[in-house]
Amino acid sequence: MMRDGSLNELLLIFLSKKGSYVSGEEISEKFGVSRTAVWKQVNHLRKLGYEIDSVPRVGYCLKRSPDLLLPEEIIQNSRLEFLARKIYHYPSIGSTNDEAKKLAQNGAPHGTLVIAEEQTGGKGRLGRRWVSPPRKGIWLSIILRPSLEPYQAPRITMTCAVAAAKAIRKVTGIDCRIKWPNDLLVKGKKVAGILTEMSADMDSINFVVTGIGINVNNTNFPKEIIETATSLKLASGKNVDRLKILTEFLSQFEVVYRCLEDGEFGKVLEEWRQLSCNLGKRVRIIGRNYELEGLALDVDGNGALLVKTNEGTVERVLSGDVSLRE
Amino acid sequence: MMRDGSLNELLLIFLSKKGSYVSGEEISEKFGVSRTAVWKQVNHLRKLGYEIDSVPRVGYCLKRSPDLLLPEEIIQNSRLEFLARKIYHYPSIGSTNDEAKKLAQNGAPHGTLVIAEEQTGGKGRLGRRWVSPPRKGIWLSIILRPSLEPYQAPRITMTCAVAAAKAIRKVTGIDCRIKWPNDLLVKGKKVAGILTEMSADMDSINFVVTGIGINVNNTNFPKEIIETATSLKLASGKNVDRLKILTEFLSQFEVVYRCLEDGEFGKVLEEWRQLSCNLGKRVRIIGRNYELEGLALDVDGNGALLVKTNEGTVERVLSGDVSLRE
Repeated sequence: MMRDGSLNELLLIFLSKKGSYVSGEEISEKFGVSRTAVWKQVNHLRKLGYEIDSVPRVGYCLKRSPDLLLPEEIIQNSRLEFLARKIYHYPSIGSTNDEAKKLAQNGAPHGTLVIAEEQTGGKGRLGRRWVSPPRKGIWLSIILRPSLEPYQAPRITMTCAVAAAKAIRKVTGIDCRIKWPNDLLVKGKKVAGILTEMSADMDSINFVVTGIGINVNNTNFPKEIIETATSLKLASGKNVDRLKILTEFLSQFEVVYRCLEDGEFGKVLEEWRQLSCNLGKRVRIIGRNYELEGLALDVDGNGALLVKTNEGTVERVLSGDVSLRE
Repeated sequence: MMRDGSLNELLLIFLSKKGSYVSGEEISEKFGVSRTAVWKQVNHLRKLGYEIDSVPRVGYCLKRSPDLLLPEEIIQNSRLEFLARKIYHYPSIGSTNDEAKKLAQNGAPHGTLVIAEEQTGGKGRLGRRWVSPPRKGIWLSIILRPSLEPYQAPRITMTCAVAAAKAIRKVTGIDCRIKWPNDLLVKGKKVAGILTEMSADMDSINFVVTGIGINVNNTNFPKEIIETATSLKLASGKNVDRLKILTEFLSQFEVVYRCLEDGEFGKVLEEWRQLSCNLGKRVRIIGRNYELEGLALDVDGNGALLVKTNEGTVERVLSGDVSLRE
């Protein structure tokens, strides 16, 4: 369902009149289809988990939506601009980032969303896997076509991190913090991760795909990550509405992204600093060919972490694994 | 033909025995097909332009190959290693880089080649077009999966430029030079251009596609570029064998690329410097948001041009258009 990015018009009508009755006749006239065709569509929605009441000679009434991140739900429950142009939704997919890259390569527009209820091959940084069980989290990728040079691409990760941290804080009240370069932590445990990928030549970016995985209602993690991972449910002690987190995140993303586009990335950087759990702390960084310990002084406008080493030099770190030392 | 990267076995046999007769019976036994099927295949090759003599009760003899850059010709006329694993050949295509990016996104291996006799939408840097008429040049993209960080990707452009300049010099004797960052010049006119694109996350490169367009036997250029473009034919006064240029380029590429892989990029850099037409000259650089004039001092290991400005500072230039001032 929804694989082609088009919308289910019937569901849009039901959602816009949630709790009220809509007559089958009205619907069949509006779409120029038979009453039987309408009834089939209603049953299709019921199979997805929509509770739809039907009263003879009165009509249909949508009582309750299932816990699904369908494009129609996103559109009905938010006021998005460029992020609502094209939304692809998959019950299950290998990796939303991989799918988004293919779509982008084939011309998908700026702002295209790729959402899955489950990822069977979810990816993190450095080739790691991101556990993405069905309906437990938000597994999402955004296709962007920013006017940035390739070395500025980490700005997109920072934009995404700020938007996600703000959304989580706003909806749940949880003290969610950003860990350089691409994770969100709650009480020191990973609740979300961001993987930004790009297609670029040496002068400019063709497209960026920024993917985010947010653990919302997961409670069981595989052994390898049980000590380091958490979810919003574990942190708050109750189920969290995935759709609310998602729509709030997308709304925040649009606001923060506008700063980036309007040459006001300094504002984003300042929010990032406020939300960071690294700055001012001692850190240890393990890169591909080096190890580094020191004081995390600041992050710069291209996403590099500035670390004052024990020898007193300041290193500009572009990539690596960070652990907090205090 | 050859769109799936598989090879025409009959053509391989003919090429390996060029000038000698191979009996139809031998061929039909070898492939387990009828004599009629062999005859059909022979006619298919004839339609491509292969001159194949056939003598009853003796067999077939390949006399002459057409001017085509077919995978079988490349393999038969070179001793390639990783660049011969998978070769896609197209009579006509939009852009070899675009096709290569799609193939790479779908898992095409390191070293995959995409070759076209014609590009209808050939691309240069900064969104410019690269005129690529049928059979007049080499329009080629190489898929690579190097262990480089994204900021090191310009090394691939430099590798490609060194290999191409050396191949052109060796085959034609023409004094071909590299113009920073991605062109090859003969007597100040552009004879080849390189467009390197990458798919990367913030830590590492997924794949690189480096595309090269070499004007070999073009003699007519569109008005806009008639003053700035040239071809090997125009420069040497005679037709140049495209296949020789291509196979020599690929062989050189393998050698130079091995340096890059073996941590000996310094050698490539030194060759680049020797072949450069910019270093030690006054240059003017027009970037997206700046203009700069000065003395081109050197290029660094990540492809940046070091320019000493009139004010005496040394600027590190990552991208921009360069014109020589003397």
